Amino acid sequence: MTMHSSAELRTERDMLGARTLPAESLFGIHTQRAVENFPISGIRVGDFPDLVRALAMVKLAAARANHDLGVLEADKLDAIEGACRLLIGGQHHDAFVVDMIQGGAGTSTNMNANEVIANLGLDRLGRARGDYAALHPNDHVNRSQSTNDVYPTALRLALILAANPLKSELDRLISALRDRATAFSTVLKLGRTQLQDAVPMSLGAEFSAFATGLEQEARQVSAALEELHVVNLGGTAIGTGINTPAGYSPAAISHLAAISGLPVTAAADFIDASSDMGALVSLSGALRRLAVRLSKMCNDLRLLSSGPRAGIGEIELPAVQAGSSIMPGKVNPVIPEVVSQIAYRVIGHDVTVSFAAEAGQLQLNAMEPVIGHSLLDALKLLAAGMRTLTDQCVSGIKARPERCRALLDASTAMCTPMVPVIGYERAAELAGATLAQGRALADLAVEAGYLSVEDFSALERAACALPDAGKASL
Amino acid sequence: MTMHSSAELRTERDMLGARTLPAESLFGIHTQRAVENFPISGIRVGDFPDLVRALAMVKLAAARANHDLGVLEADKLDAIEGACRLLIGGQHHDAFVVDMIQGGAGTSTNMNANEVIANLGLDRLGRARGDYAALHPNDHVNRSQSTNDVYPTALRLALILAANPLKSELDRLISALRDRATAFSTVLKLGRTQLQDAVPMSLGAEFSAFATGLEQEARQVSAALEELHVVNLGGTAIGTGINTPAGYSPAAISHLAAISGLPVTAAADFIDASSDMGALVSLSGALRRLAVRLSKMCNDLRLLSSGPRAGIGEIELPAVQAGSSIMPGKVNPVIPEVVSQIAYRVIGHDVTVSFAAEAGQLQLNAMEPVIGHSLLDALKLLAAGMRTLTDQCVSGIKARPERCRALLDASTAMCTPMVPVIGYERAAELAGATLAQGRALADLAVEAGYLSVEDFSALERAACALPDAGKASL
Amino acid sequence: MTMHSSAELRTERDMLGARTLPAESLFGIHTQRAVENFPISGIRVGDFPDLVRALAMVKLAAARANHDLGVLEADKLDAIEGACRLLIGGQHHDAFVVDMIQGGAGTSTNMNANEVIANLGLDRLGRARGDYAALHPNDHVNRSQSTNDVYPTALRLALILAANPLKSELDRLISALRDRATAFSTVLKLGRTQLQDAVPMSLGAEFSAFATGLEQEARQVSAALEELHVVNLGGTAIGTGINTPAGYSPAAISHLAAISGLPVTAAADFIDASSDMGALVSLSGALRRLAVRLSKMCNDLRLLSSGPRAGIGEIELPAVQAGSSIMPGKVNPVIPEVVSQIAYRVIGHDVTVSFAAEAGQLQLNAMEPVIGHSLLDALKLLAAGMRTLTDQCVSGIKARPERCRALLDASTAMCTPMVPVIGYERAAELAGATLAQGRALADLAVEAGYLSVEDFSALERAACALPDAGKASL
Amino acid sequence: MTMHSSAELRTERDMLGARTLPAESLFGIHTQRAVENFPISGIRVGDFPDLVRALAMVKLAAARANHDLGVLEADKLDAIEGACRLLIGGQHHDAFVVDMIQGGAGTSTNMNANEVIANLGLDRLGRARGDYAALHPNDHVNRSQSTNDVYPTALRLALILAANPLKSELDRLISALRDRATAFSTVLKLGRTQLQDAVPMSLGAEFSAFATGLEQEARQVSAALEELHVVNLGGTAIGTGINTPAGYSPAAISHLAAISGLPVTAAADFIDASSDMGALVSLSGALRRLAVRLSKMCNDLRLLSSGPRAGIGEIELPAVQAGSSIMPGKVNPVIPEVVSQIAYRVIGHDVTVSFAAEAGQLQLNAMEPVIGHSLLDALKLLAAGMRTLTDQCVSGIKARPERCRALLDASTAMCTPMVPVIGYERAAELAGATLAQGRALADLAVEAGYLSVEDFSALERAACALPDAGKASL
Repeated sequence: MTMHSSAELRTERDMLGARTLPAESLFGIHTQRAVENFPISGIRVGDFPDLVRALAMVKLAAARANHDLGVLEADKLDAIEGACRLLIGGQHHDAFVVDMIQGGAGTSTNMNANEVIANLGLDRLGRARGDYAALHPNDHVNRSQSTNDVYPTALRLALILAANPLKSELDRLISALRDRATAFSTVLKLGRTQLQDAVPMSLGAEFSAFATGLEQEARQVSAALEELHVVNLGGTAIGTGINTPAGYSPAAISHLAAISGLPVTAAADFIDASSDMGALVSLSGALRRLAVRLSKMCNDLRLLSSGPRAGIGEIELPAVQAGSSIMPGKVNPVIPEVVSQIAYRVIGHDVTVSFAAEAGQLQLNAMEPVIGHSLLDALKLLAAGMRTLTDQCVSGIKARPERCRALLDASTAMCTPMVPVIGYERAAELAGATLAQGRALADLAVEAGYLSVEDFSALERAACALPDAGKASL
Repeated sequence: MTMHSSAELRTERDMLGARTLPAESLFGIHTQRAVENFPISGIRVGDFPDLVRALAMVKLAAARANHDLGVLEADKLDAIEGACRLLIGGQHHDAFVVDMIQGGAGTSTNMNANEVIANLGLDRLGRARGDYAALHPNDHVNRSQSTNDVYPTALRLALILAANPLKSELDRLISALRDRATAFSTVLKLGRTQLQDAVPMSLGAEFSAFATGLEQEARQVSAALEELHVVNLGGTAIGTGINTPAGYSPAAISHLAAISGLPVTAAADFIDASSDMGALVSLSGALRRLAVRLSKMCNDLRLLSSGPRAGIGEIELPAVQAGSSIMPGKVNPVIPEVVSQIAYRVIGHDVTVSFAAEAGQLQLNAMEPVIGHSLLDALKLLAAGMRTLTDQCVSGIKARPERCRALLDASTAMCTPMVPVIGYERAAELAGATLAQGRALADLAVEAGYLSVEDFSALERAACALPDAGKASL
Repeated sequence: MTMHSSAELRTERDMLGARTLPAESLFGIHTQRAVENFPISGIRVGDFPDLVRALAMVKLAAARANHDLGVLEADKLDAIEGACRLLIGGQHHDAFVVDMIQGGAGTSTNMNANEVIANLGLDRLGRARGDYAALHPNDHVNRSQSTNDVYPTALRLALILAANPLKSELDRLISALRDRATAFSTVLKLGRTQLQDAVPMSLGAEFSAFATGLEQEARQVSAALEELHVVNLGGTAIGTGINTPAGYSPAAISHLAAISGLPVTAAADFIDASSDMGALVSLSGALRRLAVRLSKMCNDLRLLSSGPRAGIGEIELPAVQAGSSIMPGKVNPVIPEVVSQIAYRVIGHDVTVSFAAEAGQLQLNAMEPVIGHSLLDALKLLAAGMRTLTDQCVSGIKARPERCRALLDASTAMCTPMVPVIGYERAAELAGATLAQGRALADLAVEAGYLSVEDFSALERAACALPDAGKASL
Repeated sequence: MTMHSSAELRTERDMLGARTLPAESLFGIHTQRAVENFPISGIRVGDFPDLVRALAMVKLAAARANHDLGVLEADKLDAIEGACRLLIGGQHHDAFVVDMIQGGAGTSTNMNANEVIANLGLDRLGRARGDYAALHPNDHVNRSQSTNDVYPTALRLALILAANPLKSELDRLISALRDRATAFSTVLKLGRTQLQDAVPMSLGAEFSAFATGLEQEARQVSAALEELHVVNLGGTAIGTGINTPAGYSPAAISHLAAISGLPVTAAADFIDASSDMGALVSLSGALRRLAVRLSKMCNDLRLLSSGPRAGIGEIELPAVQAGSSIMPGKVNPVIPEVVSQIAYRVIGHDVTVSFAAEAGQLQLNAMEPVIGHSLLDALKLLAAGMRTLTDQCVSGIKARPERCRALLDASTAMCTPMVPVIGYERAAELAGATLAQGRALADLAVEAGYLSVEDFSALERAACALPDAGKASL
C-alpha cells in the first residue's frame, strides 16, 4: 500500500473511536471495522453483483418513500438516486469489501451499502467524500430502515436476480438433451434396472426422459422463487416498523417493485417475517433437488459411456482434454464428474442452510449471511456446471448404435415381450439357449420358426414405444 | 414357535428352491425369502398402515383395469377386491412382515402384497391358502404390473394418506398458538435481536408470529404433496408399459383415483417417472423446512421460559413431569426439547433422502425403500411431536406479565421510539441514566417532564403495534 | 387391557399429582408420565438391551460406592444388587417402556431405571412393589446421582457394548473378502478408473483391497470407542458433584470398571464432561466413515456383477430371491442395495448427531437422547447389514474368469505395459489396430512378432502384481 | 488483455488439437483446456499455497527417485529441483490457474503442475518456455507418475501443512480461555441445565471447561492428521505401480519424507489406497467435531452476554463495531455469530465429503477434488474464525460479578447444597419463601438462624468446587 499524505486521508468516528481512511475511499469506518472483524472467507459482497444491485434498489426505494413522506429532502433523494443508479449499472462494486460471511445479521453489508451510497451521493452533490453532514450514511441513506428489514429484502431480491442465469442454462441444457433425444430416437437399446439387463427401449427415450426430468426441475425452482417476492421492508428492527413514518412500508415496497420490475409484496406478519428463513430454506431445497437430478443424470452419462470396450459404451462423450499421460488415448468423462461434484457442494450447502435457519432466535436470525452466501454460491455453481455440461458435453454426445444393437441382441431382453406371442415356456427356453450359446435371441427365434425377422423387429419397436403412443398401435 | 404337524404346513417353490410355511400363512415364499435376506431395522411394512392400504388400493385398481380389458376373470377380480377391501379396512396388516429397508427397489414389498392378497382372495374363493392355481400372486394379482410402477405409485399414495394426521396436528398447533396470541395480546414486553435487548412488542404478537409462520408451513407442505399425485402406474418395468394390454395405464390410474378418492394422474414421461425421485425429494425438503421452523419456535419457548429467576422467564410452560431428583422443584422444558430432537431426526432423514435419490441409476432407483421409510417416519414423528407440543405444552402456556413489564422497564428499549418525540440527544441521555441508576426509563422520563405517564404508555403501545395497524394511528 | 380390581392397583404421587398403576407394575409414576409425554417414535429403551444393561451397571456401581461411603445400608445395597443383576442378565427389559426420543436430557430413562430397580429390589426384600419407604427410587437407587451423570455414563457404556456385534460382523466380512481374494488371485482382469478401461490387475487384488479397506475401518472404529471409556459419573447435576459424599466419584467409577470389566476412567474436567458430546460425535463420524466405505464397496459389487450380458459381468453374486415377476430369470443385487441404504441412513443419523451436539447449552446438552438413539441404531443397522452381506452375498460370490479374460483382451489395457518393451509408437499402433479390428491385442502383438505368447502372458502377470512384490521381479 | 504479436505467442498441441498461448506462459495447453472446461467456482489451485507447495514436493521427490533409478538425467533433475524450490518458496503460485473443483480426479491440477515446473525448469536450462523437447511436462516432470498417485499424495501433504495455522489458532484460543478462567475464578454464579436455574458454580470453571473441551479437539484433530501421512506414491494408475522402475515407490516416498520433513509412509495396499478416501473422511469428521464444539461455545457466550438488562448478562463481550443505527448503543455478539456460521459451513462441507467419498468407483475416486477443496476451505475458515474469536472477543471478555451474584441470590440454587445441612423439608420451605418474597435465599436462611453468613458463604464455595478438589475439604 502506498503512503498517503495527510491531505489524502480522512478520519471517521463512531461510538468506539476513530479510523483513518484514504480520502477517496467510498466506504467508511463501519465497513472498515467489519473488514477487521471478519477476515473469514475472502469472498466479498462485491463478488456477487446481484446482491450489490439489490441493495441499491432497496436503498433507492427507501429514499423515494422517505421523500414521498416528507422525511428526506429532494436534493438528498437526487444524490442517493444517482448513487444507486451507478451501483445498479454495475459500477463501484469493488467498494463492497466486507466478507460474505459475517456476524451481525448483515449489519456490515448494510453499513457498507450506506457508506458507499453516501459517498457516491456526495460526489454528485459536489462535496468531499466523508462530509456526511451533507449526506449521512445513517441519518439519510439508512433513514426509516434497519439491517433487519433491508438485508432480508435485498437478499431475496438478489436471489431472484441471480436465478436468471441458472434458469437460462437449465433451458439450454433441456434443449440440448431434446436435440440428442431426437437424434437418437431410432437407436434401440437395452433398458437396465438395478444395473441388470431388463427390457428394450430407445436411446432417444432415455435422453428425452433426462429432458423431462429437468423440465420438472425448472418448474419447481421457479415455484420456489415465487415466495422470495414477499418482503419485510418497513418492518425495521423487529417487524413493528418502529421509527418509520406512517405509510412508509407500502410506499417503499411499491417503489421497490417499480425499480426492480418485480412483483414484490409485503409479508402478512412482519414480526414473523423478520426472523423467517422459510423461503430461503425452500429455495435451498429446490436447488438441492436440481443438484440431485443433475448428478443422477451425469452418473448415467458416465455409465452409458463407460468402457469404451469393457463397459457399457452405448454413447460417446466428446473428448475435451487428454485423460491420462500414462494410458495413451484414454478419455475421461470429466464434465459429468465436475457436475456431480458441484451437486455435492450444493447438497452440503443445503445442510448449512438447515443449520443456520434453525439457529434463529426470537425476533431475528443472525445467521442469515451464511444462508445468503450458500444460496448465491449454489446458484452460481449450478449455472456454471450446466453451462459447461451443455457446451462441452451434452451437445456433442454421439450414439454408438452398433454397440447398442449388439448388447441388446446379446441379452435376453426380448424374451419378455415375446411371452404374449409364443407363451412363457418357449420364451424361457429361448432365454436359456441365448445365454448358453452366446448367440442373438433374434436369430434363435427366427430359426425356431416362431416369427419372421420382420415380425421380431416390429415386436421390438413396439416394446420400446411409450405407453400412450405404443400400446394402442399393437 | 410351536411345532406344526405336516398337515399344518404347506410348501411353496420358486426359481431358487422351496420353503415350508405354516399352512395358514398369508404370505408365501417370496416374502419368506425377503425376511431371511433383510433382517435389518425391525421396522416392518405392516408398521405403516397407510402403506399397506395404498398397496391394496393399487392392486385393486390394477385388477379392475385388467378385468375391464379382458385379461382377468370376474371371479378373480371379485376375490382380489375382497382381499384388498380387508386390507384397506385395516385388517391383516400384521402379514406385511418384510423390513421397510430392503434391497430390490421394493420388490419384496410388492411380493408380500401379492401373496397376502392372493391368499386372502383364496379364502374368499373357498380354496386353501397356497393353492395359487386358483389365484396366483404373480399371474393374477400382479398382472400387468411390475414392482417398478406399483411400489412408486403406492408409496406416493401412502405419503398422501400419512400426511393427513400431520396436517391436522399442524392445524391444531396453529389454533393453540392463535389462542395464546389472543390471551397475550395486551402483555407488553421487550423484543430481542441477536439475544440483545431491542425494542418493545407484545407477547401476543410473538405468539401470533409463531402461528403465521406455521401457516406458511401448512401451505408449503400441501404444495409438496400435490406433486405426489402424479404416478407411473402402467409403466411396468422401465416405463414402456411392456406386457400391459392396450389402454391399461389410463384405466388403472382412473380406477385408482376412484378407489382412493384422490386426483391421481399419469406422469408425462413414464421412462423418467420410473426412476424419478423428485417429488419425494421435495416432500422431504418441505418436512425439513417444517422441522426447522418447529425447532426454532421450540428454542424460543425455551428461551422465553428460561430461569425462572435467572433467565428471561417471560412465560411459564406447564409442568408435565418432575425435572430433577437432585434439584427439588426444578421443571424443565421437556416438550420443546423433544420436538427439537424430532426436528434433528427429520433433518437427518432429509440427508438420507438426498443420498438415496442421487443413487438412482439408469431406468430405476433401487434405493426407494429407504426414501419411503424416511418420509413415512418423518411424517409420523412430526405429527407425534406437534400433538404433544400442542397438548402438553402450548395450550397451557401462561404469560408472566409482571416479569415482562419489569424487563421492559429495566431496559432502554423505549429510547428508540422516544427519539422522534424528544430528540436523539435527550433520548441518549435517558438511556445512559437508566443503565447507570438501574431505574425505570419511564420514571426518569416523566420526572424530567418530557411527557406524562399516559403519553409514555401510549407511545409504548404504538411502538408495539404492527406497521399497517399501528403507523396510521400515530 | 383388562380391568383391575382396586386390589390389583397401586397409586403413586409426585409433585404434580397422582397416577394409578397396576400393582405389579415394575415402573412407577415418573415413567408413566414420560410415556404420556413422549409418544414419539415407538422405539423404547427396552428395545436396546445394551442400554438397559449399562444403566443397571451404573446403578449398581453407584449403590456400592454409596455403601462404601456409609450412605446406603447393606440390605438396600443387597436389594439393588439383586435387581441390577437381573437386568444385566437380560430379564425385565420390557419394563423399560419410555421412548428413546424424549425431552429432559435422559431424565425419564434414568427415572425408569430407578423405579424398575426399586421395585425389583422390593421383590427381593419381600415387600410390595410401590412400597418405596423400604427402597426408594430416588432416595436410595438414585442416591448421589443425577440424570446428568448417570445417563451420559450409561450411554457411553451401552455404545461400547453394542459395538461388539458390529466388530464381530466386520471381522467376519473381512474374512469372507480375504477368502474370495484368495480364490480369485489368478483371475486377471481389467482395472478401471473413472469407469473407463485402464490397466490390468487381478480380481484377487480387487477383493483384497476391499478387505484392506475394511481393516482400516475396524481400527478407526475401535479408536473412536476408546474415548467413550471416559465418564463423568459422580459429577451429578453440572459436574461439581454437588450432594455426593467425599470420595464418591472415584469409588463409583472404580466399581463400574469392576462390574463392566471395562477400563472406564474419570473425565479430567467434570464441568466440561457434563455437556460434552465430543466422543459421541467422533463415534458417529467413525460409523459414517464405515458406512461410506461399505456403500462404495457394494456399489462396486453391483458394477462388477452388472449385466449379466450387457454390463461388466465379471463376477456373479449369489441369487437370494427372484428378481422380477415380469422379467423371468432376472436376479438383482439386492443385498448390496440394502447395505447402501443402511449407509445412507447412518450418514443421515450422523447429521442428526451434528445438530443435536451443537444444540448443547451451558452446563448440559438436553438433546443427548436423540444422539444416543442415532448411534445405537447405527450400530445395529451396520451390524445387521454386514451380517447379511457376508452370509447372503460375499461368501457366495463367483468369478467369471472367461468374461474377465474377454474384456481384458478386448481392451487396450496391455498397451501401457508394452511401452517399455516395444516403444510408445508401436504400442500406440497396436492400440489403434485393436480398437479398429475388434480383435485381441495379444493376438496382434504375437502376429507382429513383437513377443511370444508366453512373454505376453508374463508381461501381463507382472503388470498385475503389486508394487513391492511385482517390481523387483521384472 | 494486451495484444500479443506473433513473436510473443507460442503454440502447443495435444491429442485434440492446438492452443495458442502467450510465449511467457508458465502453463501450457493441458492447463488451458482445463480452464476452458471448468469455469466453475472461481477458486483456483493457486489460492491454496499449501497445495502448490505439496505438489512441488511430490514432483521433486519423484524426480529424485527417477534420477536414482537411472531414468532421469542429472541436468533435468537439476532443472526440476530448481523449479520446485521456487514453488515451495512461494513463487509463481499465480500460474496454478485451474479451478479447485474439476473433473478428472485431479488430472488438471497435476497437468498444471507438470507444465509450470517444466517451464520454470526450461528457464533454468536457458531454454524457451514451451521447448518441451528439453524438459517435457509428461515425459520428464511426470515420469513414473500418474495423477492417481500424485494428486492423492499431494493433497494429503497439503492438508497436513494447512492444518498448522489451525492448530496454532486453536492453541491461542485455549490460552485465552484459560487466561479468562483464571481471571474469573472467584466469580460465583448460577449453573444452568436445560436453560433452567440449577446449582452454583464459578465463572472460572465455566471458562476452564471451554478450554478443556478445546484441548480434546486439539488432540482429536492431531490424531486425524496422523493417517494422512500414509500415501500411495508409486502406485500410478491403479496401485499396481505400472510403468515405474523397480524400487521407485520406496525411493520416491523416502525422498518425499526428506523434502517435507514429515514422516510419510507407504500404504499397505496400493490398490485400496488408490481409491481410499478414509483418512480424508476422518479429517472432515474431526473438523466437523471441532466446529460443533466451537459453535456450542459461541452460543454459550451469546447466552451469557445476553441482555444486557433483560437477559442473562453475566459477562460482557468487547464491543467491536456499532450494533444498530436504529437502536443507539446496542452492541451485538457479532464475533460468536460469525464463528457459528463458519461451523455451519464446515458441517455442510462434511456432508459434501460424505457424498464425494461414497461416489468412488472401482479403482479410483474421481470426486477427490471437491473433497480436497472442502477440507482446505474448512481448515482455512476454522483458523480464521478462531483467530478473530481470540483477538476480537475472548481475550477481552469481562465478568459482571454483581450481576452473577444477584442472579445467584435471586435463585433457589443454594437450596440443593443446604439439604445435607438443614434437611430437605426446611430447604424446600426456604425455596418457597425465596420465590414468593423475591428476596435472597441467604438472607432468609441467616434470619431463620439456620447458619451464619460465613457458613453460608463457605457452603456456597464448597458447592462450586470441582469433585476432586472440593469434596475432600468439606
